[in-house]
Amino acid sequence: MAQHSRGKIETAVRVGLDNPDDLSRHYTPGVAEQAQRVAEDPAALRRETVKANSVAIVSDGSALLGLGDQGPAAALPVMEGKAALLKRFADVDAWPICPLSRDPEDLIRTVRDLATSFGAINLEDIAAPRCFEIERRLRDELDVPVFHDDQHGIAIVVLGALHGALRLTERKPANTTVVISGAGAAGSAIARLLLEAGYRDDGIVVCDSSGVLHPDRDLDGEKRWLAEHANTGRRSGELRDALEGADVFVGVSVGGILDGADLARMADRAIVFALANPEPEVDPRAAAEHAEVVATGRSDHPNQINNVLAFPGVFRGLLDSGAPTVTTGIQLAAAEALAGVAAGQLSAERIVPGVFDEELVPAMALRGRRGRLTRGRGRRDHVRLAERGRRPAGGR
Amino acid sequence: MAQHSRGKIETAVRVGLDNPDDLSRHYTPGVAEQAQRVAEDPAALRRETVKANSVAIVSDGSALLGLGDQGPAAALPVMEGKAALLKRFADVDAWPICPLSRDPEDLIRTVRDLATSFGAINLEDIAAPRCFEIERRLRDELDVPVFHDDQHGIAIVVLGALHGALRLTERKPANTTVVISGAGAAGSAIARLLLEAGYRDDGIVVCDSSGVLHPDRDLDGEKRWLAEHANTGRRSGELRDALEGADVFVGVSVGGILDGADLARMADRAIVFALANPEPEVDPRAAAEHAEVVATGRSDHPNQINNVLAFPGVFRGLLDSGAPTVTTGIQLAAAEALAGVAAGQLSAERIVPGVFDEELVPAMALRGRRGRLTRGRGRRDHVRLAERGRRPAGGR
Repeated sequence: MAQHSRGKIETAVRVGLDNPDDLSRHYTPGVAEQAQRVAEDPAALRRETVKANSVAIVSDGSALLGLGDQGPAAALPVMEGKAALLKRFADVDAWPICPLSRDPEDLIRTVRDLATSFGAINLEDIAAPRCFEIERRLRDELDVPVFHDDQHGIAIVVLGALHGALRLTERKPANTTVVISGAGAAGSAIARLLLEAGYRDDGIVVCDSSGVLHPDRDLDGEKRWLAEHANTGRRSGELRDALEGADVFVGVSVGGILDGADLARMADRAIVFALANPEPEVDPRAAAEHAEVVATGRSDHPNQINNVLAFPGVFRGLLDSGAPTVTTGIQLAAAEALAGVAAGQLSAERIVPGVFDEELVPAMALRGRRGRLTRGRGRRDHVRLAERGRRPAGGR
Repeated sequence: MAQHSRGKIETAVRVGLDNPDDLSRHYTPGVAEQAQRVAEDPAALRRETVKANSVAIVSDGSALLGLGDQGPAAALPVMEGKAALLKRFADVDAWPICPLSRDPEDLIRTVRDLATSFGAINLEDIAAPRCFEIERRLRDELDVPVFHDDQHGIAIVVLGALHGALRLTERKPANTTVVISGAGAAGSAIARLLLEAGYRDDGIVVCDSSGVLHPDRDLDGEKRWLAEHANTGRRSGELRDALEGADVFVGVSVGGILDGADLARMADRAIVFALANPEPEVDPRAAAEHAEVVATGRSDHPNQINNVLAFPGVFRGLLDSGAPTVTTGIQLAAAEALAGVAAGQLSAERIVPGVFDEELVPAMALRGRRGRLTRGRGRRDHVRLAERGRRPAGGR
């Protein structure tokens, strides 16, 4: 494919290199002075080197797009596409790194080695449950923020989109029930962020391919946590059973597992986010017969829920603020900003902004910085942010 | 320093990302097709991804410039300066990576992880003798070329510069004696490349700070190899003693260790390369009183011997040819190309081209590709290349 020849990104030089003086200044001997300054004060890296504005996009290709385990080579064109989006939408300098090893310790060590030269890390398409441990360890060990797009990115976009959908259908988080299909990286992160955002723990029910996550099932790790901390009403059974009377369905699982009859069991004015790609969990036309708001991951339907709505603005905010961690506060603030930009023209066919909306990245970056400044985590943090959130971020 | 703010390089987007169709093509879902193609044929990475034109510049900062061990943070501004030079002079997309760990196994593992997304590796400013083992292991294990600038880069430039200096002083490699001061990465690589280029094993004498490397000394590793394979006339004593009657002095050690009286012991029409930075081994004005050709590493004297004369053209050639290894043939060819570009205006004050000479990179890249095509190693290889070399490469 000619248009892919030599890839989707390249480097560019930000300094003059046109005569011997330029060379002395930006390379030897001039750079020795800068090296010594940085050796004495490593914080100078963030001020005056490429670290100030750069992100490593790290994937081993073990859970690539909807394709499953394709290995690191196959991941490279995907990750460089993402790097191109980061530059295009948020002026962030990102480079794709696709490690070979499948040992989590190796991946952690490699990312630690990347953290000198990159101001933030984006983990991408790493298989669950390995990705949870890797993300947790890196978050604890690194002094640069570690964003896992398959968790944080999708959770921010879903929460932001739900904000508008709830307003349209006259609901509040505290009395809205949500059924999530999929208990991998995305489903787990969505459940956790909804809990932090004021959704009730008995209002969130997570299902995997065997049905509702329930403490009586033989579960461990992240699924065990979800079974104990969500679904505190202790519902059980299949996904179909869980839909009985539910307000919201969020699918981050596999295509074609539900039909119109299943959705007919949901509450009036239902909200359906069928996000499996390329085939949604339920046909969006069939869903529209039973639900008031329907969203998919596809570009050929209204309400495309796509991570590209989140990650450019989030990284812009992380780099601008120098945040050392992707806190819950930052994620909640980003979701509020997304909702704020959509709020001006909210309709059942437009609960999220378009990806080319020029207000989006500045609004998310600004709110991300504020989320960082509050430093807190969780519900109390959210209340403060939600109060501020009444003034749409996009209107600033 | 304002001119360093946000560093010396950034990324740029090589594809259109201006509408939803562009997004579908270069990100999801379009990129899935490319990912599957690459999964089936990893060689496609070199044709259609960023790997085609990219280099990872890897340094742990353990032997940074003339500053010694400064750590990875201090290395970052230096390595990004180098990345800027690679783009400016050879349109190569390079990114700096400065690993934290000092364990050679960790560094080898990290570089292995980088080899998916980078088409070549440049090792830089890693302390000897660790750098030898790291380079050797990576050369054996990776299918992308590993260039160690502190060995290969300086050796190519010294050999290329000697070519002109020998012509000016009417010498041939086989009857020229060379004393090298410095037995680290640079001194060792220069000695090895000179041996491959037709200099006699009894004509090369390498000294470290304790004097001439000789088999009777207590030496191991690379120094042991040099003591046994060079200086086969078994000279001993101090650096000063070795200079008696020598044709060439090459200093890659420390400043101010020699004076004019020392150089007076050399042969008539002597050649002195005093390359220690910022202070040369001998004052270049004093050297000029005794030697016919004097070169330093400094930009404020004639004949600046600087690695930037080599690495841009070498990487251009490596990436264009898809060479899996930096062979001796490639290094010899690059040195010949450098000499060929200088040949047109050769004088005692101009034995190497200027770094801004526009013929240089194309000539080195072309000869590098030919060096690759010969596939051979060592002297016989060199003879073929030297025969071709009579037609100056820069004149093509």
